[in-house]
Amino acid sequence: MGQIIGKQSIIFENAPYIISGGAIVGKKEGEGPLKNTFDEIEMDPTFGGENWEEGESVLQTRTAKLAIAKACMKEEDIRYIFAGDLLGQLIATTYGVKDLNIPLFGLYGACSTMGESMGLAAMTVAAGYADNVLAMASSHFGSAEKTFRFPLEYGSQRPFSTTWTVTGCGATVISKNKGFARITGITTGKIVDFGFKDPMNMGAVMAPAAADVIACHLKDFDRTPDYYDKIITGDLGYVGKKILIDFLRMKGYDISLNHYDCGMEIYDMDTQDTHAGGSGCGCSATVLCGNVYSKIMKKEWNRVLFVPTGALMSTVSYNEGRSVPGIAHCVVIEA
Amino acid sequence: MGQIIGKQSIIFENAPYIISGGAIVGKKEGEGPLKNTFDEIEMDPTFGGENWEEGESVLQTRTAKLAIAKACMKEEDIRYIFAGDLLGQLIATTYGVKDLNIPLFGLYGACSTMGESMGLAAMTVAAGYADNVLAMASSHFGSAEKTFRFPLEYGSQRPFSTTWTVTGCGATVISKNKGFARITGITTGKIVDFGFKDPMNMGAVMAPAAADVIACHLKDFDRTPDYYDKIITGDLGYVGKKILIDFLRMKGYDISLNHYDCGMEIYDMDTQDTHAGGSGCGCSATVLCGNVYSKIMKKEWNRVLFVPTGALMSTVSYNEGRSVPGIAHCVVIEA
Repeated sequence: MGQIIGKQSIIFENAPYIISGGAIVGKKEGEGPLKNTFDEIEMDPTFGGENWEEGESVLQTRTAKLAIAKACMKEEDIRYIFAGDLLGQLIATTYGVKDLNIPLFGLYGACSTMGESMGLAAMTVAAGYADNVLAMASSHFGSAEKTFRFPLEYGSQRPFSTTWTVTGCGATVISKNKGFARITGITTGKIVDFGFKDPMNMGAVMAPAAADVIACHLKDFDRTPDYYDKIITGDLGYVGKKILIDFLRMKGYDISLNHYDCGMEIYDMDTQDTHAGGSGCGCSATVLCGNVYSKIMKKEWNRVLFVPTGALMSTVSYNEGRSVPGIAHCVVIEA
Repeated sequence: MGQIIGKQSIIFENAPYIISGGAIVGKKEGEGPLKNTFDEIEMDPTFGGENWEEGESVLQTRTAKLAIAKACMKEEDIRYIFAGDLLGQLIATTYGVKDLNIPLFGLYGACSTMGESMGLAAMTVAAGYADNVLAMASSHFGSAEKTFRFPLEYGSQRPFSTTWTVTGCGATVISKNKGFARITGITTGKIVDFGFKDPMNMGAVMAPAAADVIACHLKDFDRTPDYYDKIITGDLGYVGKKILIDFLRMKGYDISLNHYDCGMEIYDMDTQDTHAGGSGCGCSATVLCGNVYSKIMKKEWNRVLFVPTGALMSTVSYNEGRSVPGIAHCVVIEA
């Protein structure tokens, strides 16, 4: 069970546990600074499939099975999957989970999806609706570029504010049984639209939504930023980070000392040519299930606020001249 | 709270109430046999906007506000929205709900989305995570044809197994406070893939998923089909209905006497040239919030099993030769 607090938050009385996390990434992520924190690095961009989309589905299947195996469970022990990806009509998820034979809640929150899936997963377990559930999100550089941008063959130049979509999937088993950490609360975000229209600068688009939900979270829980060892955003990158810190300062919160952005950590900006950083649902999901979980297990971090951030748009909305609104969701993880 | 029963179901001890439903449709739906059951019929396919996608967003905003007003509530009384649509990256929902200023869980379940949203909404209220939430789903003929098929200007001929995407949105307020009906249980579906590849015959694709979840529901709750006044599928149409009834007969259940398919009711097959029937998230959502709720309020139907059905695919997955899997979710509604 949980208790409503403040405007947008829930605090869990019998907080559900995190039992395991699985993170599988592609070649480029496997060459980055976090390479030793991932479970597997796959050199083939189609993961043995025929194309990028099939590759992303294989990636989801493998990561789900890995997280379930690391929890010493079988697929039939998992009552629900909460999962999503960036592709139109969630096709990576559809073909990725279909053979697992587990009831599915398909989710779309752009790059905030891992926050949405973990929030709903925690609500489900804390309410006694399931003993074990799986939360998962993936992205793939090739399938995302094809969905949102130009054919890779064009070799389009990218402005420095762009991010690089992570090829990766993170999956985590959340359970009523004891694990290495607990989800003690969540704050679910609203869509925030500042009217930005530049899809090549998603950090700027998402930062106001991240600032809104983090400020709401701190107010709802009556906490200051130093309650957390790290406040971990998804993929704001170098541009969005600065905006987030400025916006939160205006709201009276200073997170400059403990802010951590998954998108800025997953690649080496100097050598990997990724511009503003990594992005995609898979960015925050793999950094969470890899590096963040390992820091928590080693007791280096005891309390983190995980805040994946999403930019809500499609090529259709862009071509029709619409703005790119943002959304972000907070998940409190405590050792 | 709720209790896990069987393989995929939850029975709600303090079952949440349905307070109100709003259903707004387009011109064609407003000329069909259910025209008197909808709250509003809009003759302009862009709903005063500049294009179909913007029209679908306006439709969502209007329907959400209508359902909230019919519940004698204000937007700030609603703690969460659970909503989705058919478009890539859920753009109808993004721009449809952004100005409501309510935390959002974005969902994708193809045409099963209203079942997914009502299931999660009921779980949320029954667990005490919210007093009032809104569940919503929409579709739009123009935006769906543009997303999935050919430009309307081509005037492509359609085989008789195709369905016609409903322009419509249904939204419903689910609450801990007394309403005209209760959601007493849910059964969440798995993806079922029989390997069908014909996107022009979605009834055949979705029927096995509907049969799977209905059989699971009846087993989990230890009920026979005659427990329900109606077993209401979303948009199987004439082709899918026959397959569903045959499949369930093979599993030992006869639903031929009380089966009702929203897609077969919303249009007049003889005069409206809609071939196998209506489809889209908006089909089951508007028929539920219109005709079904009105029958329940008039006590003509006291127990219904609402089972929206979805076909999981995109133009990319189709062009890459993948199958079209199905999914369906059950929601038990009792007066």
